[in-house]
Amino acid sequence: MKIERIKGFRDHYPEDMEIRYSVFTRITNVAENFGYQRIDFPSLEYLEMYKQKSGSELVSQTFSFTDKGGREVTMIPEATPSTVRLLTARKDIPRPVRWYSLPKVWRYEEPQEGRFREHYQFNADMFGLDSAEADSEIIGLAAQILDELGLSGKYQININDRQVMEYILNDMNIQNIHEAFSVIDKYRKITREQFISMMAEINVDKKNTEKILDLLSERLDIKDFEKKLKSILNNFDGLKNRIERLKTTFSYISFYTKSDIKYDFSVVRGLSYYTGIVFEAFDSVGELRAILGGGRYDGLSTLFSDENIPAIGFAIGDAVLEILLKKYNLWEKYMRKQSYYICNLGSQFIEYSINLASKIRKSNRIALVDITGRKLSSQIKSAAEFDFALIIGENEVKSGTVTLKDMKTGEQKTIEEEEFYKLL
Amino acid sequence: MKIERIKGFRDHYPEDMEIRYSVFTRITNVAENFGYQRIDFPSLEYLEMYKQKSGSELVSQTFSFTDKGGREVTMIPEATPSTVRLLTARKDIPRPVRWYSLPKVWRYEEPQEGRFREHYQFNADMFGLDSAEADSEIIGLAAQILDELGLSGKYQININDRQVMEYILNDMNIQNIHEAFSVIDKYRKITREQFISMMAEINVDKKNTEKILDLLSERLDIKDFEKKLKSILNNFDGLKNRIERLKTTFSYISFYTKSDIKYDFSVVRGLSYYTGIVFEAFDSVGELRAILGGGRYDGLSTLFSDENIPAIGFAIGDAVLEILLKKYNLWEKYMRKQSYYICNLGSQFIEYSINLASKIRKSNRIALVDITGRKLSSQIKSAAEFDFALIIGENEVKSGTVTLKDMKTGEQKTIEEEEFYKLL
Repeated sequence: MKIERIKGFRDHYPEDMEIRYSVFTRITNVAENFGYQRIDFPSLEYLEMYKQKSGSELVSQTFSFTDKGGREVTMIPEATPSTVRLLTARKDIPRPVRWYSLPKVWRYEEPQEGRFREHYQFNADMFGLDSAEADSEIIGLAAQILDELGLSGKYQININDRQVMEYILNDMNIQNIHEAFSVIDKYRKITREQFISMMAEINVDKKNTEKILDLLSERLDIKDFEKKLKSILNNFDGLKNRIERLKTTFSYISFYTKSDIKYDFSVVRGLSYYTGIVFEAFDSVGELRAILGGGRYDGLSTLFSDENIPAIGFAIGDAVLEILLKKYNLWEKYMRKQSYYICNLGSQFIEYSINLASKIRKSNRIALVDITGRKLSSQIKSAAEFDFALIIGENEVKSGTVTLKDMKTGEQKTIEEEEFYKLL
Repeated sequence: MKIERIKGFRDHYPEDMEIRYSVFTRITNVAENFGYQRIDFPSLEYLEMYKQKSGSELVSQTFSFTDKGGREVTMIPEATPSTVRLLTARKDIPRPVRWYSLPKVWRYEEPQEGRFREHYQFNADMFGLDSAEADSEIIGLAAQILDELGLSGKYQININDRQVMEYILNDMNIQNIHEAFSVIDKYRKITREQFISMMAEINVDKKNTEKILDLLSERLDIKDFEKKLKSILNNFDGLKNRIERLKTTFSYISFYTKSDIKYDFSVVRGLSYYTGIVFEAFDSVGELRAILGGGRYDGLSTLFSDENIPAIGFAIGDAVLEILLKKYNLWEKYMRKQSYYICNLGSQFIEYSINLASKIRKSNRIALVDITGRKLSSQIKSAAEFDFALIIGENEVKSGTVTLKDMKTGEQKTIEEEEFYKLL
């Protein structure tokens, strides 16, 4: 039996990889221009790191194993704990800290559309501030990345706040808050009847379940969000400060993007370390999984140090983003370099051809020398994907010229070598 | 106990990561300009893939495990088998194929200077040609990458040919050729006495061992290489074609680089799949491990298909390269973007500040908005690493101006917003 690729993993051939990489470059460029700096971390960490804060579902989906030194390790299922580990290991870095990374992450899940066992994940995080300014900058960065990729008007961002949700559930006298979150997290994947029966199982009464369902049923403008809470809460006043902060956050976000951003009580985010605002971006039409998601996770640093460091961040996986960009015909190479295919009519001309190629490359253009020794017509065929073919034979070498063929128009001319270099 | 990094792995903080990444970009840019295209592949492959061709030493050093589906898998210890797997899985790609990749690879080895359990590895490979033209292009690409990084004159490339070595050992009537290769591979790590006794153990007689030691003792010009073989071989004529090809290869390589490139019988390369030319680059002075290494591996495709596809490639690890670049003060960011730190004197000015930042970023420059609410002097302190500080307060917002402070000279001036944008 021939050896094949492992299930759920992808091979990345040039036709997609070069576009994927240019998408990554555009994403990281936006982050860089916001003053975020690139970090990276091991692809392997102690499994223990995820056991305490990430939630048991995630831990059960890891590629984890015992290494040759007896360590219980895992291929990283997400970037956030590693990022926080790096932060806490260095006391000398002035805060706020703005970092981004683009690792591969791995999850042992059933593969499906937009979900693989290995994917690239862009992460951006800010540490050291707990404020509307920080929250809005992170969400603004997320929005500007999608805008930069050409997705303006094609996505929506839904925002919720874990503290608001907890307040509401407490206000309803619900005891099993953690379990209620789990049910709410499933809201979009289950029927109304299933939701009601799951809530009943954890002793949420029918009236409160109906209230919750009402909350979850629609995305709200930030103004309507406040009205809705007034109508539903027994004690509204205790939430006033939190609402003010969210209103400020929404107002600041509007300085970054004109995109469709709403309050949505159904956004919970599976990871159990979130402590404040949480958000997700979705395709405005269609049934895709979230394009990106994130939130505030102020407690996570206590895994690694005694200090509780405010933190907010988000992650974009490459798989759903790729589906979306393809859907809108935005999956194309952003900046293609001009490319030259040097047809070389014999090994006696190879020095001339290689020198020519070196000079073209010095101008940061692509130059490929055909070294197959095939006849010219075959070489020209191989040049089809290039902008120009350059034909180098006895005439050209003797007279110090190049024959240049425009592969789009088919136009062909012979010009002085020096004149050609001026075109570059 | 707090959770820490796993032994042998590295955390990559911005001060090094941004330089590392710019080094990677310069490397991949050279490959791209040669017409090589980016691919990527899973970080996890079946362990079986390495068992047959890579050699048992490598397999014993893998991070391998049984996954939750019962598969015997490994984090990839090298890129070549995956690259060949991709090639053979697609019959439609016209050859020659030129590919590059920049994955992380993992080896469970004892960490030491320039060797970690995880490192980045640049790979370039050409498939479909077995010729001096192909061999010299790959070695020329390797050399031009080092030249591009500023290392011209600071490295040497040593070339050998597995077929020449086999021919010599056969010519000496040595029976245990595979074992003799293993001893030769250790030449630079052991004493002369150890070498002699190891050769004796595999029944190589003293006279032949002395001859081999003579061959291994010096790097040779390609002309002296031929003379040396004439003097040592019983049957020289059978090697003539191979020598001609190597002479052509050396001559073509000189079209790519003026660097110090010699024949060196001591280059064997540990991996057992090499079938022809093999090469390594070293720091010209000093005791570092190889900066890069590669060779021809024509048989590897038979692991995945019935076709025997000619192949040659090389790999550059990031760890030794980093030591070398630091040694020569070449470890610095190549193209730094101009950067602006926006000091923001109150949350009432945040809209103005964010708009200003957005416009700066549109010109592909870095703009960071201080959102800490600290006093101006603290904000200015944080701006120290930036090119300019922009101070935004009541005066600026009212009059539509910005106050610009050059962080190198300390010079400060207030100018019209529109005038400022023209500076970008």
